[in-house]
Amino acid sequence: MIKVGVLGATGYAGIETVRLLSKHPEVKIVKLVSQSFDGQKISDVYPNLAGIIDIECSILDVDDIASSCDVVFTALPHGVSKEVIPDLYKKGLKIIDLSGDFRYNDVSVYEKWYKESHPAPELLEKSVYGLCELYRDKIKQTNLVGNPGCYTTCSILALYPLLKAGVICHDNIIIDAKSGVTGAGRTTKLDYSFCECTENMNAYKIATHRHTSEIEQELSIAAGEEVMVSFTPHLVPLKRGIYSTCYANLSEDISDEEIEKIYTEFYKNEFFVRILPHGKIPESNWVAGSNFVNIGFETDKRLRRIIVCSTIDNLIKGAAGQAVQNMNIMMGFDEKCGLDMPAMYL
Amino acid sequence: MIKVGVLGATGYAGIETVRLLSKHPEVKIVKLVSQSFDGQKISDVYPNLAGIIDIECSILDVDDIASSCDVVFTALPHGVSKEVIPDLYKKGLKIIDLSGDFRYNDVSVYEKWYKESHPAPELLEKSVYGLCELYRDKIKQTNLVGNPGCYTTCSILALYPLLKAGVICHDNIIIDAKSGVTGAGRTTKLDYSFCECTENMNAYKIATHRHTSEIEQELSIAAGEEVMVSFTPHLVPLKRGIYSTCYANLSEDISDEEIEKIYTEFYKNEFFVRILPHGKIPESNWVAGSNFVNIGFETDKRLRRIIVCSTIDNLIKGAAGQAVQNMNIMMGFDEKCGLDMPAMYL
Amino acid sequence: MIKVGVLGATGYAGIETVRLLSKHPEVKIVKLVSQSFDGQKISDVYPNLAGIIDIECSILDVDDIASSCDVVFTALPHGVSKEVIPDLYKKGLKIIDLSGDFRYNDVSVYEKWYKESHPAPELLEKSVYGLCELYRDKIKQTNLVGNPGCYTTCSILALYPLLKAGVICHDNIIIDAKSGVTGAGRTTKLDYSFCECTENMNAYKIATHRHTSEIEQELSIAAGEEVMVSFTPHLVPLKRGIYSTCYANLSEDISDEEIEKIYTEFYKNEFFVRILPHGKIPESNWVAGSNFVNIGFETDKRLRRIIVCSTIDNLIKGAAGQAVQNMNIMMGFDEKCGLDMPAMYL
Amino acid sequence: MIKVGVLGATGYAGIETVRLLSKHPEVKIVKLVSQSFDGQKISDVYPNLAGIIDIECSILDVDDIASSCDVVFTALPHGVSKEVIPDLYKKGLKIIDLSGDFRYNDVSVYEKWYKESHPAPELLEKSVYGLCELYRDKIKQTNLVGNPGCYTTCSILALYPLLKAGVICHDNIIIDAKSGVTGAGRTTKLDYSFCECTENMNAYKIATHRHTSEIEQELSIAAGEEVMVSFTPHLVPLKRGIYSTCYANLSEDISDEEIEKIYTEFYKNEFFVRILPHGKIPESNWVAGSNFVNIGFETDKRLRRIIVCSTIDNLIKGAAGQAVQNMNIMMGFDEKCGLDMPAMYL
Repeated sequence: MIKVGVLGATGYAGIETVRLLSKHPEVKIVKLVSQSFDGQKISDVYPNLAGIIDIECSILDVDDIASSCDVVFTALPHGVSKEVIPDLYKKGLKIIDLSGDFRYNDVSVYEKWYKESHPAPELLEKSVYGLCELYRDKIKQTNLVGNPGCYTTCSILALYPLLKAGVICHDNIIIDAKSGVTGAGRTTKLDYSFCECTENMNAYKIATHRHTSEIEQELSIAAGEEVMVSFTPHLVPLKRGIYSTCYANLSEDISDEEIEKIYTEFYKNEFFVRILPHGKIPESNWVAGSNFVNIGFETDKRLRRIIVCSTIDNLIKGAAGQAVQNMNIMMGFDEKCGLDMPAMYL
Repeated sequence: MIKVGVLGATGYAGIETVRLLSKHPEVKIVKLVSQSFDGQKISDVYPNLAGIIDIECSILDVDDIASSCDVVFTALPHGVSKEVIPDLYKKGLKIIDLSGDFRYNDVSVYEKWYKESHPAPELLEKSVYGLCELYRDKIKQTNLVGNPGCYTTCSILALYPLLKAGVICHDNIIIDAKSGVTGAGRTTKLDYSFCECTENMNAYKIATHRHTSEIEQELSIAAGEEVMVSFTPHLVPLKRGIYSTCYANLSEDISDEEIEKIYTEFYKNEFFVRILPHGKIPESNWVAGSNFVNIGFETDKRLRRIIVCSTIDNLIKGAAGQAVQNMNIMMGFDEKCGLDMPAMYL
Repeated sequence: MIKVGVLGATGYAGIETVRLLSKHPEVKIVKLVSQSFDGQKISDVYPNLAGIIDIECSILDVDDIASSCDVVFTALPHGVSKEVIPDLYKKGLKIIDLSGDFRYNDVSVYEKWYKESHPAPELLEKSVYGLCELYRDKIKQTNLVGNPGCYTTCSILALYPLLKAGVICHDNIIIDAKSGVTGAGRTTKLDYSFCECTENMNAYKIATHRHTSEIEQELSIAAGEEVMVSFTPHLVPLKRGIYSTCYANLSEDISDEEIEKIYTEFYKNEFFVRILPHGKIPESNWVAGSNFVNIGFETDKRLRRIIVCSTIDNLIKGAAGQAVQNMNIMMGFDEKCGLDMPAMYL
Repeated sequence: MIKVGVLGATGYAGIETVRLLSKHPEVKIVKLVSQSFDGQKISDVYPNLAGIIDIECSILDVDDIASSCDVVFTALPHGVSKEVIPDLYKKGLKIIDLSGDFRYNDVSVYEKWYKESHPAPELLEKSVYGLCELYRDKIKQTNLVGNPGCYTTCSILALYPLLKAGVICHDNIIIDAKSGVTGAGRTTKLDYSFCECTENMNAYKIATHRHTSEIEQELSIAAGEEVMVSFTPHLVPLKRGIYSTCYANLSEDISDEEIEKIYTEFYKNEFFVRILPHGKIPESNWVAGSNFVNIGFETDKRLRRIIVCSTIDNLIKGAAGQAVQNMNIMMGFDEKCGLDMPAMYL
């Protein structure tokens, strides 16, 4: 049993991490940090946890964390993680950061898209981008993982194999993504109130969403040259789920069978990636509540274009689940440990 | 007061037509045809109408309709309209058909996408495509309107002015559209049950949806040459609303101000089309419950690409509302008559 | 055309009043007061109104209101109305107050349940309780209406005829009521965020909700003696709708036909009250979007108990619609004017 | 590892049983019976299960089941179970039946409320009512459990301790219950379509719902005399959750502390029952996705009445979860085994 702390435990990504860890057979949760709920039992803030985990939240104390924890999950707001993590890192803790602060290879990309300076660019060199299916070997070696964003996990896994195989054009890649409202986190903004969200939908942050840069970083690696994409996020009235509909022009005549084979080959050892047979289109409730990614595709012969649909649970594979998967890899546990529940469907 | 009949009155498009007509100051509803509910009061099938309109449904009787009605709305399943309408047309009735049967200029396009033959191709030459903002003058002259589809109205109005102005490339046009569940009509299919739809989303009929052909017909006219598009419909868990996110590459360097001007100029006399200032993105509840179309856009300077978002209420501007708008035009009424209610928002 | 102002125009009850008035044939909206959105166009705050009503919001100026308006709707938070209304009243304006401040006959009841003192108890004597179906004659004579609460309208109309007829026992009356989330108003409280509300339900303020006192005031009048009830509100995940399930023991053996007759007789002249035949149970979407009340009942012969179900749209018959109905009565307009649209159903 | 079969595996209660069993450490699922999906992989019917459990469905073969299974769950429609179970019972299988067919002590009660005869009344004497918290000892001894209904589990657990303690009156007990739509099962009825259910709510089967008889059976046992209750089910637009609001008159002056003590004492050894402190009202998302029951109460001093609110996940504690809990008890496993996940909350 390892000892684990969660910083920012009462946000939605934080509490989902707590929920998953509470049933992880190798983990004992010892610290829950919450500035807002210091002194309150986590099960008073989230009564679903009563009888399962009832420990008190406390404010951040780096020394205390260092002496009591082996692994720390930081589910802090973007910009806060980078202030806190250098100290934790120096203490030798294994850290999985759910913010955007340690996902970038190039600090200038971070600073351009997040519009703020980074206080620990040297840590960016140590940190590993925690997209488990792509960086498993590096994750094993690091003490600091930048856990990927929700939109990015869903979109990168959909397009990476095609770019790697060189079968799609690098321009005209379009990712039209739809997210459930938990993606906005635990927030009191009017925009996310029930009456404003339900029976409503809209695009937002067109051409400017930060996840664009993260997607481009990884797709460029796959392509071997700089790739730029149109990424358009949408808010839709459900709680859990990301759905990415990705468009790309095929660079050659290739059969649906060959495309399917590219995918199945690329992900052949991946428990959490399910490639659907050509023409079968995934639905978000096939993954909601689970750590799975479902990927399906169709081709438009008239236009020599492929449309790839991928879907994840934004709170699990898009945040807390992948964070736990990263922990499993870092600690040498079975990667599926504590994560192999099926989606709820209903 | 004109006398109006609605065929297929108990489907969702039909009953929405009835609801709108019930408050139309120039209309008296005299006939509601429903094969399934013959002999039942419409207000027993839809109790929201009790005290407003309580007449009995009856089965189809062409002579009876011809002798009692001036205008007929046919909200019948695709494929049924084309069997019924020739007889009604011969009687000299004004007909607004909400199915796909009379929307096409070229019967071969219909037969290709609907995979069935058309029994009255000669009527296709008489029928006018009822997208009011584009064909107002022709609609005034005709006795038969093919009322446009929901996805198509939303998508065509978004892209038509740009193609007409010649500022976007004709290839690489992508329309990623999201629809509420009423778009599927009054159906008992399991796919549309509450438990299967709520907290779920998915794409469907990728590269094969019939509305593709309708969109391409109109966009080709705007462009002056054949245009083919990727059109991907999605089902999202709300009742009313279509949201089209349209991607196109700009064919020239053009400022956002110029683009905005193209739109405002094109739609300057259109009450039901609201062009948002550059950068303001529409939400579907700004139009739900109304006959309005909202259109907003953003450009991605990095990629010289425009992203246009348009939204309508699929049952109103996407079906019944536009049908009533067509009737207003055909009859010489004020085009807004019975249709100028604001969206519900809440 | 009368000139109308709405105070608190940007709250949910306020904006619903604006929406209804915007299409009222006898009304010109001349003033929208909003402390939060002073100087902004109402259609920038609620873009559904663009092209329908675009006037600017302003802060409260009693003299300005008095000189420009004939009728004022005050949709202010509870406790604010009572500070503002005395000045408006002195100016001779007709006022319809949507808060709880002027609904009570007895100031001590107000002070007990609202836990604050009332600065204008003398106005309580002038104000009329605006439950149109019960107090039409008094409403015609007054300049100040205390527009009823949403739960109360729904519950009182369900039980009043039975108490008046003397067929139910006065003890053991239980009202179990369910409300959509718009009932909480335009609020940024976390409790009303999409993620906390959707797929969730709960009772709240058991035995302490303020509407209890309002219900008891009216049911006591009906009964001719003090009646106390259990009233339990619940929050359910929809936008619009109140559903009251009312339980009472029958005081005598009475047939279902006789009960139905008590209702139909009592409401025989009421356009907005629809009594369902015995055994038919109303659904909230039969009234959502309309000013109607639907009432149905069943009896449990084993227990000699009646269960009455009534439902309204909380924003319309439960707030803005009834307020407009009150205005119609006060001004001598047709009571249905601007209010006779059917429910949306879909 | 025991070998388990699920009959009616593709209904909602069936598939939820499969989902829970798929992660149960003591269980190997060997048979999934489905008349409708014979020959199809369960993961093709429910793609959320792909990679977790992919065995094929087959039609019912009693001998085959008997030879391959130790325990059988029958999640068949009411009326079908009673035809199938006698044969399975004779084979010596342990059977947990999720229908209403084996829940009654008195066959005449069954026949009265289900309006059909029972072919195996002698088995009713063998069967044990599977409300685990009440009948644990009997469940250990039996081979046939009648797994309780969803409404009944929620309601009985709320009221049983009070009746047992003798602190509430036996008349005037009212249970106003609200259910999510999965309670209707996997159905294609229009009433349960998304468009008819979302943004809608209604009571149904007032005074006639079958669960009334089941509730009365158990509450009568608690009370030591026949108790009759008003039970009113409602449909509300969410997937999972039952919420029972129970009203009863206190038979004596008793403090809230004493009432709380009655509950905490009665359930002191029950992991799955969480008694909230007086005045704290449960919400359904505190239990959704889990096997927990949350119970809270408030008293109305004015009326000497108690209002008890209890909530469960109808598919888990109200069906599949309790069925697995029954299996755990029958087999001598830890009762929490495979069931101790916290609720999802989000």
